[in-house]
Amino acid sequence: MLKYTDIDTSFRALAEPTRRAIVERLSRGPATVTDLAKPFDMTLAAVVQHLQVLEECGLIRTEKVGRVRTCQIDPRGLGKISDWVAAQRVLFERRLDRLGDILAETDEPGQPTEKDQ
Amino acid sequence: MLKYTDIDTSFRALAEPTRRAIVERLSRGPATVTDLAKPFDMTLAAVVQHLQVLEECGLIRTEKVGRVRTCQIDPRGLGKISDWVAAQRVLFERRLDRLGDILAETDEPGQPTEKDQ
Repeated sequence: MLKYTDIDTSFRALAEPTRRAIVERLSRGPATVTDLAKPFDMTLAAVVQHLQVLEECGLIRTEKVGRVRTCQIDPRGLGKISDWVAAQRVLFERRLDRLGDILAETDEPGQPTEKDQ
Repeated sequence: MLKYTDIDTSFRALAEPTRRAIVERLSRGPATVTDLAKPFDMTLAAVVQHLQVLEECGLIRTEKVGRVRTCQIDPRGLGKISDWVAAQRVLFERRLDRLGDILAETDEPGQPTEKDQ
């Protein structure tokens, strides 16, 4: 289960372009550590470290079968981020809607405004 | 306009709980720096520093009229984050759908499978 503070570490994990690129790759399907490392100009150890950060905050899962470690997206991790962002947008848009309603009411023809009274 | 690297700094900015709390508050509507600082047990200077981080990465806008600085959400900033997360979820879900289709096809009764031929 994701811990409460995982959203802090998830945001921090995704602030790093290599880790975002790994998540982008894994969104297309599972991959081995060796395959994941191929496009990056860095040591396998550095890639493994990035994978550990992503796994610790629940953005990916890894499984070792024999000598091969396979990584895949854990959709709950991205879900936490998208839920938080969506909640803020809902609040923001609701406020805009309310402002729109107020403007529409004051614009309505034939309705006395404060100035008219 | 948002710079390309703003998504790095936006993710980093939102990894900090006080900054997320400020964004949550501003999603409900604009607020002055003094009002924003009230719920936090920190100096006004520390709050101003958090606001600068949020403004630099395009998550909020601030405007000074006379001696009062008012802050508000810049929806484009959260939009960048939510677009990136949504893109990954679309890829991931598309893959799950394809897997579902493949499973449905192989389960279909009366359809010859490779083994039957």
